[in-house]
Amino acid sequence: MAIFAQTHTKPAPTDHPVHELIRERWSPRAYSDRPVERPVLARLFEAARWAPSSSNQQPWSFIFGEQGSSGYQRIFDALVPFNQGWVKSAPVLAIGLARKNSANGSPNHYALYDLGQAVGLLLVEATSLGLAVHEMAGFDAEKARTNLNIPETHDLGAIMTIGYAGDPNTLPDALKERELAPRTRNPLAQFVFEDAFGEVANLKRA
Amino acid sequence: MAIFAQTHTKPAPTDHPVHELIRERWSPRAYSDRPVERPVLARLFEAARWAPSSSNQQPWSFIFGEQGSSGYQRIFDALVPFNQGWVKSAPVLAIGLARKNSANGSPNHYALYDLGQAVGLLLVEATSLGLAVHEMAGFDAEKARTNLNIPETHDLGAIMTIGYAGDPNTLPDALKERELAPRTRNPLAQFVFEDAFGEVANLKRA
Repeated sequence: MAIFAQTHTKPAPTDHPVHELIRERWSPRAYSDRPVERPVLARLFEAARWAPSSSNQQPWSFIFGEQGSSGYQRIFDALVPFNQGWVKSAPVLAIGLARKNSANGSPNHYALYDLGQAVGLLLVEATSLGLAVHEMAGFDAEKARTNLNIPETHDLGAIMTIGYAGDPNTLPDALKERELAPRTRNPLAQFVFEDAFGEVANLKRA
Repeated sequence: MAIFAQTHTKPAPTDHPVHELIRERWSPRAYSDRPVERPVLARLFEAARWAPSSSNQQPWSFIFGEQGSSGYQRIFDALVPFNQGWVKSAPVLAIGLARKNSANGSPNHYALYDLGQAVGLLLVEATSLGLAVHEMAGFDAEKARTNLNIPETHDLGAIMTIGYAGDPNTLPDALKERELAPRTRNPLAQFVFEDAFGEVANLKRA
Protein backbone atom coordinates (compact mmCIF):
# COMPACT_ATOMS: atom_id res chain seq x y z
CA MET A 1 0.00 0.00 0.00
CA ALA A 2 1.13 3.49 -0.80
CA ILE A 3 0.83 4.60 2.80
CA PHE A 4 3.67 2.28 3.71
CA ALA A 5 6.02 3.62 1.05
CA GLN A 6 8.46 4.86 3.64
CA THR A 7 12.18 4.67 3.41
CA HIS A 8 12.19 1.61 5.59
CA THR A 9 9.38 -0.67 6.73
CA LYS A 10 9.51 -3.31 9.38
CA PRO A 11 6.45 -5.56 9.23
CA ALA A 12 5.93 -7.75 12.27
CA PRO A 13 6.95 -11.38 11.62
CA THR A 14 3.66 -12.70 12.98
CA ASP A 15 2.76 -16.33 13.73
CA HIS A 16 -0.90 -15.62 12.88
CA PRO A 17 -2.19 -13.13 10.32
CA VAL A 18 -3.08 -9.67 11.63
CA HIS A 19 -4.48 -6.56 9.97
CA GLU A 20 -1.84 -4.60 8.04
CA LEU A 21 -2.27 -1.57 10.32
CA ILE A 22 -1.07 -3.70 13.20
CA ARG A 23 1.57 -5.55 11.21
CA GLU A 24 3.12 -2.39 9.77
CA ARG A 25 3.13 -0.31 12.96
CA TRP A 26 6.57 0.12 14.44
CA SER A 27 8.65 2.64 16.37
CA PRO A 28 11.33 4.21 14.19
CA ARG A 29 13.97 6.67 15.36
CA ALA A 30 14.67 8.26 11.98
CA TYR A 31 12.18 10.88 10.77
CA SER A 32 11.89 12.77 7.53
CA ASP A 33 11.63 16.57 7.63
CA ARG A 34 8.06 16.45 6.36
CA PRO A 35 5.93 18.36 8.88
CA VAL A 36 2.77 16.93 10.43
CA GLU A 37 -0.06 19.31 9.69
CA ARG A 38 -2.61 20.23 12.32
CA PRO A 39 -5.59 18.49 10.68
CA VAL A 40 -3.50 15.32 10.61
CA LEU A 41 -2.59 15.67 14.29
CA ALA A 42 -6.28 16.18 14.99
CA ARG A 43 -7.06 12.78 13.48
CA LEU A 44 -4.63 11.08 15.83
CA PHE A 45 -6.24 12.58 18.91
CA GLU A 46 -9.69 11.92 17.48
CA ALA A 47 -8.77 8.23 17.28
CA ALA A 48 -7.62 8.30 20.90
CA ARG A 49 -10.86 10.07 21.83
CA TRP A 50 -13.01 7.11 20.79
CA ALA A 51 -11.19 4.54 22.89
CA PRO A 52 -13.28 2.72 25.47
CA SER A 53 -12.68 3.52 29.13
CA SER A 54 -13.91 2.44 32.51
CA SER A 55 -17.39 4.02 32.96
CA ASN A 56 -16.54 6.17 29.90
CA GLN A 57 -14.42 8.38 32.17
CA GLN A 58 -11.91 9.15 29.41
CA PRO A 59 -9.07 9.83 31.84
CA TRP A 60 -6.61 10.66 29.04
CA SER A 61 -5.18 13.96 27.96
CA PHE A 62 -2.26 14.96 25.75
CA ILE A 63 0.19 17.81 25.44
CA PHE A 64 2.08 18.21 22.20
CA GLY A 65 4.71 20.56 20.89
CA GLU A 66 5.82 21.25 17.34
CA GLN A 67 9.48 21.48 16.51
CA GLY A 68 10.63 25.03 17.19
CA SER A 69 7.94 25.72 19.79
CA SER A 70 8.42 26.25 23.51
CA GLY A 71 6.32 23.14 24.13
CA TYR A 72 8.61 20.99 22.04
CA GLN A 73 11.59 22.26 23.98
CA ARG A 74 9.88 21.64 27.32
CA ILE A 75 9.15 18.02 26.44
CA PHE A 76 12.59 17.56 24.90
CA ASP A 77 14.30 18.89 28.03
CA ALA A 78 12.73 16.16 30.14
CA LEU A 79 14.09 13.32 27.99
CA VAL A 80 17.19 11.37 29.00
CA PRO A 81 20.26 12.24 26.90
CA PHE A 82 20.04 8.99 24.93
CA ASN A 83 16.56 9.91 23.68
CA GLN A 84 17.49 13.56 23.15
CA GLY A 85 20.16 12.24 20.82
CA TRP A 86 17.72 10.90 18.24
CA VAL A 87 14.34 12.61 18.74
CA LYS A 88 15.72 15.86 17.34
CA SER A 89 14.53 14.92 13.86
CA ALA A 90 10.91 14.30 14.90
CA PRO A 91 8.57 17.16 13.93
CA VAL A 92 6.23 16.66 16.91
CA LEU A 93 6.69 15.51 20.50
CA ALA A 94 3.78 14.65 22.76
CA ILE A 95 3.10 13.25 26.19
CA GLY A 96 0.07 11.31 27.38
CA LEU A 97 -1.49 11.95 30.79
CA ALA A 98 -4.05 10.10 32.90
CA ARG A 99 -6.35 11.68 35.47
CA LYS A 100 -5.66 9.61 38.58
CA ASN A 101 -9.05 9.76 40.30
CA SER A 102 -12.61 9.08 39.29
CA ALA A 103 -15.20 11.84 39.49
CA ASN A 104 -16.13 10.61 42.98
CA GLY A 105 -12.55 11.18 44.17
CA SER A 106 -11.52 7.54 44.49
CA PRO A 107 -8.42 6.28 42.63
CA ASN A 108 -9.18 5.03 39.13
CA HIS A 109 -7.32 1.71 38.80
CA TYR A 110 -7.82 1.95 35.03
CA ALA A 111 -6.43 5.46 34.50
CA LEU A 112 -3.12 4.46 32.90
CA TYR A 113 -4.70 1.38 31.33
CA ASP A 114 -7.28 3.52 29.57
CA LEU A 115 -4.63 6.01 28.48
CA GLY A 116 -2.78 3.03 27.02
CA GLN A 117 -5.86 1.94 25.09
CA ALA A 118 -6.31 5.45 23.73
CA VAL A 119 -2.68 5.55 22.61
CA GLY A 120 -3.10 2.11 21.05
CA LEU A 121 -5.84 3.52 18.82
CA LEU A 122 -3.73 6.62 18.13
CA LEU A 123 -0.92 4.35 16.92
CA VAL A 124 -3.25 2.57 14.51
CA GLU A 125 -4.60 5.86 13.16
CA ALA A 126 -1.02 7.12 12.75
CA THR A 127 -0.08 4.01 10.80
CA SER A 128 -3.10 4.46 8.54
CA LEU A 129 -1.88 7.98 7.73
CA GLY A 130 1.68 6.85 6.99
CA LEU A 131 2.91 8.33 10.27
CA ALA A 132 5.14 6.68 12.83
CA VAL A 133 5.18 7.08 16.59
CA HIS A 134 7.96 6.06 18.97
CA GLU A 135 7.06 6.01 22.65
CA MET A 136 9.60 6.56 25.39
CA ALA A 137 9.65 5.92 29.12
CA GLY A 138 13.18 7.36 29.27
CA PHE A 139 12.52 10.81 30.71
CA ASP A 140 12.58 12.67 34.01
CA ALA A 141 8.94 12.65 35.14
CA GLU A 142 9.37 15.46 37.63
CA LYS A 143 11.06 17.64 35.05
CA ALA A 144 8.25 16.96 32.57
CA ARG A 145 5.67 17.77 35.23
CA THR A 146 7.33 21.08 36.07
CA ASN A 147 8.13 22.10 32.50
CA LEU A 148 4.59 21.43 31.28
CA ASN A 149 2.59 22.54 34.35
CA ILE A 150 1.13 19.06 34.79
CA PRO A 151 -0.97 19.02 37.98
CA GLU A 152 -0.60 16.30 40.62
CA THR A 153 -4.09 15.11 39.71
CA HIS A 154 -2.58 13.52 36.60
CA ASP A 155 -0.23 10.61 36.11
CA LEU A 156 2.31 10.60 33.29
CA GLY A 157 2.21 8.15 30.42
CA ALA A 158 4.84 7.98 27.69
CA ILE A 159 6.50 10.73 25.72
CA MET A 160 6.21 10.05 22.01
CA THR A 161 7.60 11.26 18.73
CA ILE A 162 5.11 11.80 15.89
CA GLY A 163 6.30 12.12 12.30
CA TYR A 164 6.91 10.49 8.95
CA ALA A 165 9.59 7.82 9.09
CA GLY A 166 12.88 8.79 7.51
CA ASP A 167 16.07 7.30 6.23
CA PRO A 168 17.83 4.99 8.73
CA ASN A 169 21.13 6.16 7.23
CA THR A 170 20.64 9.51 8.95
CA LEU A 171 21.11 7.76 12.32
CA PRO A 172 24.43 7.14 14.07
CA ASP A 173 25.73 3.60 13.47
CA ALA A 174 24.55 2.03 16.75
CA LEU A 175 21.02 3.37 16.29
CA LYS A 176 20.96 2.52 12.62
CA GLU A 177 21.70 -1.07 13.56
CA ARG A 178 18.75 -1.09 15.97
CA GLU A 179 16.56 0.57 13.34
CA LEU A 180 17.25 -2.26 10.93
CA ALA A 181 17.23 -5.12 13.46
CA PRO A 182 14.35 -7.63 13.36
CA ARG A 183 11.42 -7.06 15.70
CA THR A 184 10.96 -9.61 18.46
CA ARG A 185 8.14 -10.61 20.80
CA ASN A 186 7.44 -13.43 23.23
CA PRO A 187 5.50 -16.34 21.68
CA LEU A 188 1.76 -16.53 22.36
CA ALA A 189 2.29 -19.71 24.39
CA GLN A 190 4.06 -17.57 26.96
CA PHE A 191 1.18 -15.23 27.70
CA VAL A 192 -2.14 -16.61 26.42
CA PHE A 193 -3.78 -18.95 28.90
CA GLU A 194 -7.01 -20.89 28.91
CA ASP A 195 -9.21 -21.53 31.94
CA ALA A 196 -6.55 -20.49 34.50
CA PHE A 197 -3.25 -18.63 34.79
CA GLY A 198 -0.34 -20.65 33.42
CA GLU A 199 -2.46 -23.12 31.46
CA VAL A 200 -1.24 -22.63 27.91
CA ALA A 201 -4.10 -22.10 25.47
CA ASN A 202 -4.70 -24.38 22.54
CA LEU A 203 -5.13 -21.85 19.73
CA LYS A 204 -4.96 -24.36 16.89
CA ARG A 205 -8.22 -26.21 17.40
CA ALA A 206 -10.74 -25.08 14.76
CA MET B 1 -17.81 -3.01 4.27
CA ALA B 2 -19.05 -6.55 4.61
CA ILE B 3 -17.25 -7.04 7.89
CA PHE B 4 -19.54 -4.49 9.50
CA ALA B 5 -22.71 -6.24 8.34
CA GLN B 6 -23.81 -6.84 11.91
CA THR B 7 -27.31 -6.52 13.23
CA HIS B 8 -26.52 -3.10 14.59
CA THR B 9 -23.61 -0.77 14.01
CA LYS B 10 -22.72 2.33 15.94
CA PRO B 11 -20.09 4.38 14.10
CA ALA B 12 -18.45 7.07 16.21
CA PRO B 13 -19.79 10.56 15.37
CA THR B 14 -16.29 11.97 14.96
CA ASP B 15 -15.30 15.62 14.59
CA HIS B 16 -12.30 14.63 12.44
CA PRO B 17 -12.10 11.66 10.09
CA VAL B 18 -10.60 8.47 11.51
CA HIS B 19 -9.90 5.04 10.04
CA GLU B 20 -13.01 2.88 9.78
CA LEU B 21 -11.57 0.30 12.16
CA ILE B 22 -11.54 2.97 14.85
CA ARG B 23 -14.83 4.53 13.84
CA GLU B 24 -16.71 1.23 13.79
CA ARG B 25 -15.33 -0.23 17.02
CA TRP B 26 -17.80 -0.22 19.85
CA SER B 27 -18.79 -2.27 22.89
CA PRO B 28 -22.06 -4.11 22.36
CA ARG B 29 -23.88 -6.19 24.95
CA ALA B 30 -25.86 -8.36 22.52
CA TYR B 31 -23.99 -11.24 20.89
CA SER B 32 -25.00 -13.71 18.24
CA ASP B 33 -24.57 -17.42 18.93
CA ARG B 34 -21.86 -17.70 16.28
CA PRO B 35 -18.79 -19.20 18.00
CA VAL B 36 -15.33 -17.63 17.80
CA GLU B 37 -12.99 -20.22 16.39
CA ARG B 38 -9.55 -20.75 17.84
CA PRO B 39 -7.58 -19.47 14.81
CA VAL B 40 -9.64 -16.28 15.04
CA LEU B 41 -8.92 -15.91 18.77
CA ALA B 42 -5.26 -16.43 17.94
CA ARG B 43 -5.32 -13.39 15.66
CA LEU B 44 -6.63 -11.20 18.46
CA PHE B 45 -3.81 -12.18 20.80
CA GLU B 46 -1.30 -11.93 17.96
CA ALA B 47 -2.36 -8.30 17.48
CA ALA B 48 -1.90 -7.66 21.20
CA ARG B 49 1.50 -9.34 21.01
CA TRP B 50 2.89 -6.73 18.63
CA ALA B 51 2.01 -3.74 20.78
CA PRO B 52 4.91 -1.56 21.87
CA SER B 53 5.92 -1.66 25.53
CA SER B 54 8.40 -0.01 27.83
CA SER B 55 11.80 -1.62 27.07
CA ASN B 56 9.86 -4.26 25.11
CA GLN B 57 8.98 -5.94 28.42
CA GLN B 58 5.58 -7.09 27.14
CA PRO B 59 4.03 -7.20 30.62
CA TRP B 60 0.67 -8.42 29.31
CA SER B 61 -0.96 -11.80 29.55
CA PHE B 62 -4.48 -13.08 28.98
CA ILE B 63 -6.72 -15.84 30.25
CA PHE B 64 -9.77 -16.74 28.22
CA GLY B 65 -12.60 -19.20 28.58
CA GLU B 66 -15.07 -20.46 26.00
CA GLN B 67 -18.72 -20.70 26.83
CA GLY B 68 -19.34 -24.01 28.57
CA SER B 69 -15.78 -24.33 29.90
CA SER B 70 -14.64 -24.13 33.52
CA GLY B 71 -12.61 -21.05 32.62
CA TYR B 72 -15.65 -19.21 31.32
CA GLN B 73 -17.50 -20.01 34.51
CA ARG B 74 -14.56 -18.84 36.66
CA ILE B 75 -14.42 -15.49 34.91
CA PHE B 76 -18.21 -15.17 34.88
CA ASP B 77 -18.41 -15.84 38.63
CA ALA B 78 -16.21 -12.82 39.34
CA LEU B 79 -18.47 -10.37 37.48
CA VAL B 80 -20.93 -8.15 39.31
CA PRO B 81 -24.55 -9.28 38.89
CA PHE B 82 -25.31 -6.46 36.43
CA ASN B 83 -22.65 -7.74 34.04
CA GLN B 84 -23.55 -11.37 34.62
CA GLY B 85 -27.01 -10.41 33.42
CA TRP B 86 -25.91 -9.67 29.88
CA VAL B 87 -22.55 -11.39 29.21
CA LYS B 88 -24.27 -14.79 29.14
CA SER B 89 -24.68 -14.54 25.36
CA ALA B 90 -20.98 -13.89 24.67
CA PRO B 91 -19.14 -16.97 23.37
CA VAL B 92 -15.80 -16.03 24.96
CA LEU B 93 -14.77 -14.22 28.13
CA ALA B 94 -11.21 -13.09 28.76
CA ILE B 95 -9.23 -11.11 31.30
CA GLY B 96 -6.08 -9.08 30.72
CA LEU B 97 -3.20 -9.16 33.22
CA ALA B 98 -0.08 -7.05 33.69
CA ARG B 99 3.15 -8.24 35.33
CA LYS B 100 3.73 -5.58 37.98
CA ASN B 101 7.51 -5.55 38.14
CA SER B 102 10.31 -5.21 35.64
CA ALA B 103 12.86 -7.99 35.26
CA ASN B 104 15.11 -6.18 37.76
CA GLY B 105 12.38 -6.37 40.40
CA SER B 106 11.42 -2.69 40.45
CA PRO B 107 7.78 -1.68 39.85
CA ASN B 108 6.95 -1.13 36.18
CA HIS B 109 5.00 2.14 36.04
CA TYR B 110 3.91 1.19 32.53
CA ALA B 111 2.56 -2.31 33.28
CA LEU B 112 -1.16 -1.49 33.06
CA TYR B 113 -0.49 1.18 30.43
CA ASP B 114 1.20 -1.34 28.17
CA LEU B 115 -1.56 -3.89 28.78
CA GLY B 116 -3.97 -1.15 27.69
CA GLN B 117 -2.02 -0.57 24.49
CA ALA B 118 -2.02 -4.29 23.73
CA VAL B 119 -5.79 -4.44 24.28
CA GLY B 120 -6.18 -1.36 22.07
CA LEU B 121 -4.59 -3.28 19.21
CA LEU B 122 -6.65 -6.37 20.04
CA LEU B 123 -9.80 -4.24 19.72
CA VAL B 124 -8.76 -3.04 16.27
CA GLU B 125 -7.97 -6.57 15.12
CA ALA B 126 -11.32 -7.73 16.48
CA THR B 127 -13.13 -4.99 14.56
CA SER B 128 -11.29 -5.97 11.36
CA LEU B 129 -12.61 -9.53 11.81
CA GLY B 130 -16.18 -8.40 12.42
CA LEU B 131 -15.88 -9.22 16.12
CA ALA B 132 -16.90 -7.04 19.03
CA VAL B 133 -15.36 -6.74 22.47
CA HIS B 134 -16.94 -5.19 25.54
CA GLU B 135 -14.59 -4.49 28.44
CA MET B 136 -15.74 -4.41 32.04
CA ALA B 137 -14.27 -3.10 35.25
CA GLY B 138 -17.34 -4.32 37.13
CA PHE B 139 -16.01 -7.48 38.79
CA ASP B 140 -14.61 -8.71 42.08
CA ALA B 141 -10.85 -8.62 41.55
CA GLU B 142 -10.08 -10.91 44.48
CA LYS B 143 -12.59 -13.46 43.29
CA ALA B 144 -11.12 -13.35 39.79
CA ARG B 145 -7.63 -13.77 41.23
CA THR B 146 -8.64 -16.79 43.30
CA ASN B 147 -10.82 -18.42 40.63
CA LEU B 148 -8.15 -18.13 37.95
CA ASN B 149 -5.01 -18.73 40.05
CA ILE B 150 -3.63 -15.29 39.20
CA PRO B 151 -0.41 -14.74 41.15
CA GLU B 152 0.25 -11.58 43.16
CA THR B 153 3.00 -10.73 40.67
CA HIS B 154 0.25 -9.67 38.25
CA ASP B 155 -2.20 -6.80 38.26
CA LEU B 156 -5.68 -7.21 36.79
CA GLY B 157 -6.88 -5.32 33.74
CA ALA B 158 -10.40 -5.57 32.36
CA ILE B 159 -12.62 -8.58 31.81
CA MET B 160 -13.93 -8.62 28.26
CA THR B 161 -16.51 -10.35 26.14
CA ILE B 162 -15.41 -11.50 22.68
CA GLY B 163 -17.95 -12.42 20.05
CA TYR B 164 -19.98 -11.42 17.02
CA ALA B 165 -22.46 -8.67 17.76
CA GLY B 166 -26.08 -9.78 17.90
CA ASP B 167 -29.57 -8.42 17.80
CA PRO B 168 -30.22 -5.62 20.33
CA ASN B 169 -33.77 -6.92 20.60
CA THR B 170 -32.48 -9.89 22.54
CA LEU B 171 -31.58 -7.55 25.42
CA PRO B 172 -33.91 -6.47 28.24
CA ASP B 173 -35.47 -3.05 27.60
CA ALA B 174 -33.10 -0.97 29.73
CA LEU B 175 -30.03 -2.50 28.10
CA LYS B 176 -31.55 -2.35 24.65
CA GLU B 177 -31.97 1.38 25.14
CA ARG B 178 -28.28 1.73 26.06
CA GLU B 179 -27.32 -0.49 23.11
CA LEU B 180 -29.08 1.88 20.72
CA ALA B 181 -28.12 5.17 22.44
CA PRO B 182 -25.65 7.50 20.69
CA ARG B 183 -21.98 7.24 21.65
CA THR B 184 -20.52 10.25 23.46
CA ARG B 185 -17.03 11.55 24.19
CA ASN B 186 -15.49 14.74 25.53
CA PRO B 187 -14.49 17.23 22.81
CA LEU B 188 -10.82 17.39 21.81
CA ALA B 189 -10.59 20.91 23.25
CA GLN B 190 -11.05 19.36 26.68
CA PHE B 191 -8.02 17.07 26.57
CA VAL B 192 -5.59 18.06 23.81
CA PHE B 193 -3.16 20.74 24.89
CA GLU B 194 -0.30 22.52 23.19
CA ASP B 195 2.93 23.62 24.86
CA ALA B 196 1.62 23.16 28.44
CA PHE B 197 -1.18 21.53 30.41
CA GLY B 198 -4.49 23.39 30.04
CA GLU B 199 -3.47 25.38 26.94
CA VAL B 200 -6.04 24.28 24.38
CA ALA B 201 -4.43 23.19 21.12
CA ASN B 202 -5.20 24.86 17.84
CA LEU B 203 -5.86 21.84 15.63
CA LYS B 204 -7.31 23.80 12.72
CA ARG B 205 -4.22 25.59 11.47
CA ALA B 206 -3.00 23.90 8.26
